Amino acid sequence: MKTVGIIGLGLIGGSMAIDLRRRRFAEELIGVDSEPVNAAAAVRIGLVDEIVSFEECVRRSDLIVLAVPVGTAAGMLPGILDRFAVAEDGARKIVIDVCSAKEALVRAVKNHPMRSRYVSTHPMAGTEYSGPWAAVPGLFDGRACIICNRGESDPDAAAAVENLYDVLNMRQIDMDASNHDVHTAYVSHISHITSFALALTVLDKEKNEKHIFDLASGGFSSTVRLAKSSADMWVPIFSQNRDNVVKVIDTYLERMKDFRNAIADGDEDSVRSLIEEANRIKRIIR
Amino acid sequence: MKTVGIIGLGLIGGSMAIDLRRRRFAEELIGVDSEPVNAAAAVRIGLVDEIVSFEECVRRSDLIVLAVPVGTAAGMLPGILDRFAVAEDGARKIVIDVCSAKEALVRAVKNHPMRSRYVSTHPMAGTEYSGPWAAVPGLFDGRACIICNRGESDPDAAAAVENLYDVLNMRQIDMDASNHDVHTAYVSHISHITSFALALTVLDKEKNEKHIFDLASGGFSSTVRLAKSSADMWVPIFSQNRDNVVKVIDTYLERMKDFRNAIADGDEDSVRSLIEEANRIKRIIR
Repeated sequence: MKTVGIIGLGLIGGSMAIDLRRRRFAEELIGVDSEPVNAAAAVRIGLVDEIVSFEECVRRSDLIVLAVPVGTAAGMLPGILDRFAVAEDGARKIVIDVCSAKEALVRAVKNHPMRSRYVSTHPMAGTEYSGPWAAVPGLFDGRACIICNRGESDPDAAAAVENLYDVLNMRQIDMDASNHDVHTAYVSHISHITSFALALTVLDKEKNEKHIFDLASGGFSSTVRLAKSSADMWVPIFSQNRDNVVKVIDTYLERMKDFRNAIADGDEDSVRSLIEEANRIKRIIR
Repeated sequence: MKTVGIIGLGLIGGSMAIDLRRRRFAEELIGVDSEPVNAAAAVRIGLVDEIVSFEECVRRSDLIVLAVPVGTAAGMLPGILDRFAVAEDGARKIVIDVCSAKEALVRAVKNHPMRSRYVSTHPMAGTEYSGPWAAVPGLFDGRACIICNRGESDPDAAAAVENLYDVLNMRQIDMDASNHDVHTAYVSHISHITSFALALTVLDKEKNEKHIFDLASGGFSSTVRLAKSSADMWVPIFSQNRDNVVKVIDTYLERMKDFRNAIADGDEDSVRSLIEEANRIKRIIR
């Protein structure tokens, strides 16, 4: 591919830039970031060759990676397709997003005349850090990437994106956008909320008990790790996937109350059953 | 120290055996385990030199490490001190426990004539695995070890135990047993309950959606890791630390409901505030 444009040079966009360059997927990498500090850092670190305007990025890129928070992506995607519609080579250009909630995004461009130049993707990789400084090589290796509603994209666009994720060493899974949003609510979004709530619980206590964190065990650190995740990314995810997320939280609250009541009642048999049931996760997560 | 006896050859007792041997703290290591398979494995792996009866372990050991679940420890500790009381060298023997809930245990022997030969300790290290096969070298290096109510132990006993934890490379922190139980409820016990509840929530969904775990992200795996932890260990901890644990769960449920309601109401400002407040955990956990 000649020119890849990356809009949003954070953890995901930046990490993608690193691997697309060193694995020679792109001859040229150009980038856009609304934060001047991030943009300057992305060039200095060498993530992209050049920082350009949004307009120039859309004009020059053969493939655009939209790697901004999902609310922003939903705002920008129709505008990108509008520009494809009037560009001479618009019918050969491709745009993908990499967001963690997909249904609203897919719905936003459902009837756009250039819809078929968009491929909806979710590379399931990340860390709790953000910004161009958080970008790392190999972030995507071996992880799952979900391609949503592939049939709504042109075959050549889908094939180019398949090649891109092959280069990133990702396992590709096809899924309907609305199924995607149910599943990620369970295996990703709820984990973040439980971590945020855990951090709030413990921080509240810590106001009065300064040395409580001397005791933070490895277990606490791993459970609370995601609570470092950025509000800019997660606020729009929870908004766009609201119905699914609320449903999962409600189920979770029920399970938490089962534990609470069994412990409060001194009902050791029920506590044991709950733990042994939870232990079945061993079968699935190594 | 000539002979160290380890009662309970699981993750903690076994890992302690490995480091006490290779760092030459003990000339001889003997062990007790009520599970014949565990006992046989502990000898085969080389954790201890010999498996002996409980009686023989108490008789031959200069220092006993009681590394069984906290409910079992509370039952055994008075019996060990009873045997010290009638042994010729009982006034030189030492027993420690390594449990994660301390107040009930300390209370159980408060008025025992041999109380001062007991040192109450909590080395804060572990993994989600259990049994002698889970024992690893270096498990305790650099972690915190809480010594509870040190003033109730004889100075020579406290000094020997200080030396033992120096050999294990642990940071030692003195604390009152009841404070210990409050703090561990916050920084350890609640993390396990949130993981168990998360596993239950997702496993429940998975009954109908077989491939949901194809999508399990790194974030989910780290948040749910503790849900593999053993019921044998955790049921008695939650029982013995019931009041503190229930209080922390109640606080946690409130924070979770704050999230739930802000997301359900589409109140992005409140969701953002909650996340940014939770992000303060960065200051504390690296």
